[in-house]
Amino acid sequence: MFACVAIVPGSFDPVTNGHIDVIERASRLFRTVRVAVADNSAKRPTFSRDERVGMLTEACGHLSNVTIGWFDGLLVEYARAISAHAIVRGLRAVSDFEYELQMAHTNRCLAPEVETVFMPTRTDYSFLSSSIVKEIARLGGSVEGLVPDGVRQRLREKFDQRAS
Amino acid sequence: MFACVAIVPGSFDPVTNGHIDVIERASRLFRTVRVAVADNSAKRPTFSRDERVGMLTEACGHLSNVTIGWFDGLLVEYARAISAHAIVRGLRAVSDFEYELQMAHTNRCLAPEVETVFMPTRTDYSFLSSSIVKEIARLGGSVEGLVPDGVRQRLREKFDQRAS
Amino acid sequence: MFACVAIVPGSFDPVTNGHIDVIERASRLFRTVRVAVADNSAKRPTFSRDERVGMLTEACGHLSNVTIGWFDGLLVEYARAISAHAIVRGLRAVSDFEYELQMAHTNRCLAPEVETVFMPTRTDYSFLSSSIVKEIARLGGSVEGLVPDGVRQRLREKFDQRAS
Amino acid sequence: MFACVAIVPGSFDPVTNGHIDVIERASRLFRTVRVAVADNSAKRPTFSRDERVGMLTEACGHLSNVTIGWFDGLLVEYARAISAHAIVRGLRAVSDFEYELQMAHTNRCLAPEVETVFMPTRTDYSFLSSSIVKEIARLGGSVEGLVPDGVRQRLREKFDQRAS
Amino acid sequence: MFACVAIVPGSFDPVTNGHIDVIERASRLFRTVRVAVADNSAKRPTFSRDERVGMLTEACGHLSNVTIGWFDGLLVEYARAISAHAIVRGLRAVSDFEYELQMAHTNRCLAPEVETVFMPTRTDYSFLSSSIVKEIARLGGSVEGLVPDGVRQRLREKFDQRAS
Amino acid sequence: MFACVAIVPGSFDPVTNGHIDVIERASRLFRTVRVAVADNSAKRPTFSRDERVGMLTEACGHLSNVTIGWFDGLLVEYARAISAHAIVRGLRAVSDFEYELQMAHTNRCLAPEVETVFMPTRTDYSFLSSSIVKEIARLGGSVEGLVPDGVRQRLREKFDQRAS
Repeated sequence: MFACVAIVPGSFDPVTNGHIDVIERASRLFRTVRVAVADNSAKRPTFSRDERVGMLTEACGHLSNVTIGWFDGLLVEYARAISAHAIVRGLRAVSDFEYELQMAHTNRCLAPEVETVFMPTRTDYSFLSSSIVKEIARLGGSVEGLVPDGVRQRLREKFDQRAS
Repeated sequence: MFACVAIVPGSFDPVTNGHIDVIERASRLFRTVRVAVADNSAKRPTFSRDERVGMLTEACGHLSNVTIGWFDGLLVEYARAISAHAIVRGLRAVSDFEYELQMAHTNRCLAPEVETVFMPTRTDYSFLSSSIVKEIARLGGSVEGLVPDGVRQRLREKFDQRAS
Repeated sequence: MFACVAIVPGSFDPVTNGHIDVIERASRLFRTVRVAVADNSAKRPTFSRDERVGMLTEACGHLSNVTIGWFDGLLVEYARAISAHAIVRGLRAVSDFEYELQMAHTNRCLAPEVETVFMPTRTDYSFLSSSIVKEIARLGGSVEGLVPDGVRQRLREKFDQRAS
Repeated sequence: MFACVAIVPGSFDPVTNGHIDVIERASRLFRTVRVAVADNSAKRPTFSRDERVGMLTEACGHLSNVTIGWFDGLLVEYARAISAHAIVRGLRAVSDFEYELQMAHTNRCLAPEVETVFMPTRTDYSFLSSSIVKEIARLGGSVEGLVPDGVRQRLREKFDQRAS
Repeated sequence: MFACVAIVPGSFDPVTNGHIDVIERASRLFRTVRVAVADNSAKRPTFSRDERVGMLTEACGHLSNVTIGWFDGLLVEYARAISAHAIVRGLRAVSDFEYELQMAHTNRCLAPEVETVFMPTRTDYSFLSSSIVKEIARLGGSVEGLVPDGVRQRLREKFDQRAS
Repeated sequence: MFACVAIVPGSFDPVTNGHIDVIERASRLFRTVRVAVADNSAKRPTFSRDERVGMLTEACGHLSNVTIGWFDGLLVEYARAISAHAIVRGLRAVSDFEYELQMAHTNRCLAPEVETVFMPTRTDYSFLSSSIVKEIARLGGSVEGLVPDGVRQRLREKFDQRAS
């Protein structure tokens, strides 16, 4: 049997156009894709888990085989729970790669039946990250073209709210 | 529609246990896997194209959804010719990654409908390459555990023949 | 018209001899150089903005075409405000490079008319950073040769003050 | 005279099987090996200094030329105090390497008579770190094979205690 | 005095749109830019020195402060001969960076008065190299958008000529 | 028993001051150091095996526990033949590191009882290699300070001889 379910995990705090690019690619390669928001309270996210799930749901509405979920334990336990065969991660640059390779080997050690596959992001998103998007928004710059429209609106609310 | 055909391209001069590891992983994720030997005469391979196809055929006999082929033009043209949706490449280390990323972007530029996916090799094969295997064999060392048994035999013939 | 104004931005917390090396090189390549202290309160600097500007002013006194300033918004907005054509960054090692490349692409996206140029630091400063200097000073080691003399004095005051 | 005393410094928060691998290798190359726990309160370790020394003492009991100690100042001062000739560090991946090279050059600058030597860890421990071990334990995964048995027990106590 | 002459050296075998991007950027930062073709016969270039100079002359016709030349000795001797203050190199990826840093330090050692500056290429040219362009052309793929139009024509002639 | 014999292998075509730096460091850490010239005819060295051994013998005359030898098979076989416990390699930069790590893992696989240790070179030799030294000499530049005096003389003879 061939794989039909893939997970695209992440913090998505918030989702960027780079993430959407990877999710779209995965949705063309796998029968079903579950985008999984990591609910790691230790990381003190800017957006709540529900806000992050909401932004993803809106941004992935055009992809019929993609669903959104969240998990708060080990990623591989979540993968097992939803019978996923593959974990998909976008790769931008070398520094990404080493960390991702380390996570892939750790997950293989914990759950050998789940494969990790990497997909390279588009070169024009190679510099894009949630942190950089938030930094630009915080300093009043424009994030047009870097995040989905709905996220742009939420970033404005979040940082205007803080400033006032 | 979800992807069902993936290509695992390479020189396979000769195939190592690291290559087999990647092919096995790909065969669990995709419906059909075509292992494709690059017939690039400019590279002056140690084994002929037919020898390389032969060793792969023998080494992949246990994988029912894997077939072996070869190509001598652009990889993406071959991918189109066999209606492949994905190119699968194993990744061992950082230096691999940069070259592979460059090839992935080039191929995307030439054929946007074919996705490149990377799969990390097992850590105990992270140092393994066809070049190192040939170097060890040439100097009379043992390549047991590094290549399929059939390849070990052929390496011996190749380098004994040269020495005599 | 050719470029005449370049910015050397940074936290400079505190300025090291590695920074001075880059500033001196930039001052030989560009008509005017503005050293710009990033006033990012989120980073909780060891030295206040005014202390950092003061140490730089003292350490760059011998460079007639170098002035010191600070900014607290987007770097590219500051560049536009002072009509700078280039952002100059020192590069020490590979890990620097990836982050710097990411920032360069982000800044190009926000302000395409401002170029980022990288200048390699002297090899004997390749290990030097403000963090390492502070760590050595905190643990009572000597930072002679690593920072300008005025900075050495201030580091002593800062960490003696804390210890007592 | 040839070197006889080597230091293996680290946070060891907690010691992993990757650390033990490096300590065992060092114990075969040098007459005496001192494993030195860095007591850096700024890092807010999960285990106290005494707990970390205790776990190491237990895990290194089979190595007759290895002793355990701790230091809270500059590593090179500690090296001088115990007349060590070499600092031994394990290397896993490229990202390790750059940081380690920076520390080696800093230490050489502070104490030219102490050499830093790097030893590569086993490939199957190349993904292993204290942080990943703690993350797995925190989320309820199994760390068997990743840390010494005694550490496994302590991790369970630490994270069960927190959960309850 | 501020720098007014910069060299952009390279093999340019052939010039790509990535090279043109760097030359254009340099022409906005420096008063005069000399593009310098390295005439290194040991490298066995695909195009002769004169062909390479010719393609560059055509491709840089729109840049009034850019001239084309060639050199066959040490780059720094050429820099001195034309009174250049800076060597400009494009940077694409990490593997570029290490080699370039090595050359920069070597050149600084030979001629301390000439500075090397690096400029990052556009992200969508980050995968582009003369080698890849020739490989695509050799295998019959399209290099539209990767090289100037004149170069495309010459590549066709070169590889058609070889095939027939 | 602690290790007393270490090998410093290499092509040494020719030996540079960077190599000497590593050999001197190794000679302070190990009781006996064997510098081992790899006699790999496939690499087509500039200097013959005997020339390379001769230059090393001259350059290491001041180190009483260092001897010079050569090998033409597997390095680990040579290590076993002379009862060496450690292979010492200098590390300059990240690109070195990946290749060296690959060789270390290969050698460990072939001879688990021989440890590989890496020693970082001085930062001011971080750009130095035999290739760069030969390139500078070939183009008529000065290699003073980059190689031992005897090597400088031999490089002049080699390249003058070729030119005439």
